[in-house]
Amino acid sequence: MSLIALGTVAIDNIKTSDGEKRGLLGGSASHFSMSARFFTKVFLSGIIGSDFPEKYKQLFRQKKIDTTAIVVKPGKTFEWDGEYKKENYNSAITLKTELGVITEYKPKLTKEQKNIAHVFLANLDPGSQLAFLNEMNSPKLIGLDSMNLWITNNRPELLKLIRKAHIYFVNDGEARLLTDEHNLLKAAKVLKALGPKIIILKKGEHGVIVFGDNCQFAFPAYPVEHVVDPTGAGDTFAGGVMGYLSKAGRVNEKTLRQAVLYATTIASFNVEGFGLANTSALTAHQVEGRLKQLINFIDPKK
Amino acid sequence: MSLIALGTVAIDNIKTSDGEKRGLLGGSASHFSMSARFFTKVFLSGIIGSDFPEKYKQLFRQKKIDTTAIVVKPGKTFEWDGEYKKENYNSAITLKTELGVITEYKPKLTKEQKNIAHVFLANLDPGSQLAFLNEMNSPKLIGLDSMNLWITNNRPELLKLIRKAHIYFVNDGEARLLTDEHNLLKAAKVLKALGPKIIILKKGEHGVIVFGDNCQFAFPAYPVEHVVDPTGAGDTFAGGVMGYLSKAGRVNEKTLRQAVLYATTIASFNVEGFGLANTSALTAHQVEGRLKQLINFIDPKK
Repeated sequence: MSLIALGTVAIDNIKTSDGEKRGLLGGSASHFSMSARFFTKVFLSGIIGSDFPEKYKQLFRQKKIDTTAIVVKPGKTFEWDGEYKKENYNSAITLKTELGVITEYKPKLTKEQKNIAHVFLANLDPGSQLAFLNEMNSPKLIGLDSMNLWITNNRPELLKLIRKAHIYFVNDGEARLLTDEHNLLKAAKVLKALGPKIIILKKGEHGVIVFGDNCQFAFPAYPVEHVVDPTGAGDTFAGGVMGYLSKAGRVNEKTLRQAVLYATTIASFNVEGFGLANTSALTAHQVEGRLKQLINFIDPKK
Repeated sequence: MSLIALGTVAIDNIKTSDGEKRGLLGGSASHFSMSARFFTKVFLSGIIGSDFPEKYKQLFRQKKIDTTAIVVKPGKTFEWDGEYKKENYNSAITLKTELGVITEYKPKLTKEQKNIAHVFLANLDPGSQLAFLNEMNSPKLIGLDSMNLWITNNRPELLKLIRKAHIYFVNDGEARLLTDEHNLLKAAKVLKALGPKIIILKKGEHGVIVFGDNCQFAFPAYPVEHVVDPTGAGDTFAGGVMGYLSKAGRVNEKTLRQAVLYATTIASFNVEGFGLANTSALTAHQVEGRLKQLINFIDPKK
């Protein structure tokens, strides 16, 4: 089944200990779709300015990502300058943010797109996420991601979204900020009580804990010796989960575990290169190869 | 096969958000042996003062832990006052340390004890660890633990020990301090190059990564919703690993994975109670029950 995602499509300027790259294609929706494409047909929504490079439109086309729901407005594409310090690859330092046209987003969806059953709301302001969700005709599966900024500044709107979501993707810091619970299991319980049947708690290099309907499980991350740029790792991960579940057509413990394993695998490629460099060049064969390595790495029954 | 461990036997006064307990039996060797006892005959070495409570001697006897290699000196038993803040159960705040007789330790081992094939050097000053190891007759398997204090203050002696050890138990902070490498995989490579065939890298609530001879694997921790007192979790974990390996009689990927799973399980009981309260009351049946839950929790093939 197909999948539609709303999120940012951005220009990223990124500094890590491996150097500095300017003018990269970035944004939560870009990373998400570059991962979800391995499993299903992905439609992307978001907003870009008239300055958006043609080569990046081409890249989406090449990867069979449908961009017809992306709104184009005169002006500047959202641009983000970020830096990562070696001591803490788990959190980015924002050097500069140029919003450009991003605040003008209004959903522009065809009838066909409004009927897509699987929806992902990648990180974006909760107002836009709600407006987009309201356009959709009774989606079967809604995944949601957010960030610290919206937890602090737009809590009521975010809580409304969390109530509507089936799967909430949240990292450890966000879970603690949102619930005021330090213990992650307690925090996850509080989050589940807010609405979502499934909480996917991301811990970066420490892996993931999933709190499902009648199941709980945890996997370590794939061991990456050289992290080049962690930007978009969470979006790539979410793309793997939502993409796999859309392909599977049903959400149960089995498909959820599989989805998280694939997602962990693709996210590990993401952090080994700048921006989308690795995930856009990645083949399904490479994904399968590393998935086997990951399972071998974490298998308690081996 | 039997196992002999050197370490501290202490009186602990511990403050956590669950309250304050004074006069607890603690120390690295106590926690280690209370866990290793599930798998093998454990001999304990260390030093206590003449004030050491009779009830704790009885506890060791009840649990079939051999204490004949413990040295008793006139004076005070090593005493530690520690506190844990809710925000960071991974590291203790030392409020007070009374060394007592601990600096007077000199190994006092019978001929039989010197021939024990499996040796564990629990956290203690590297000088005592070396003195003890020199008394042993060509042990087959040497496990080593240490702490930040000795990495900073006794590095040359500690490096000598690491060279002799087959398995080095180290937490993430210690690994980074010792190697000056932030990435844990790189740090583990540096540590392996120092001598040990196996590095067991402990990450507290985030589980463990094992770097073996021809294998690497990682397991998440068992999910504990209410951590009461993390004191001795690392020693309990090491006791599970060394105890299981001693029982198995050989170290290979299979036995190592099993050992780490048992160790993870027993350590989870340890943190759910003050001091040795839980691990001393624990039954093999309870361990097996939770081990099954753990495997279910982390199984990628389920």
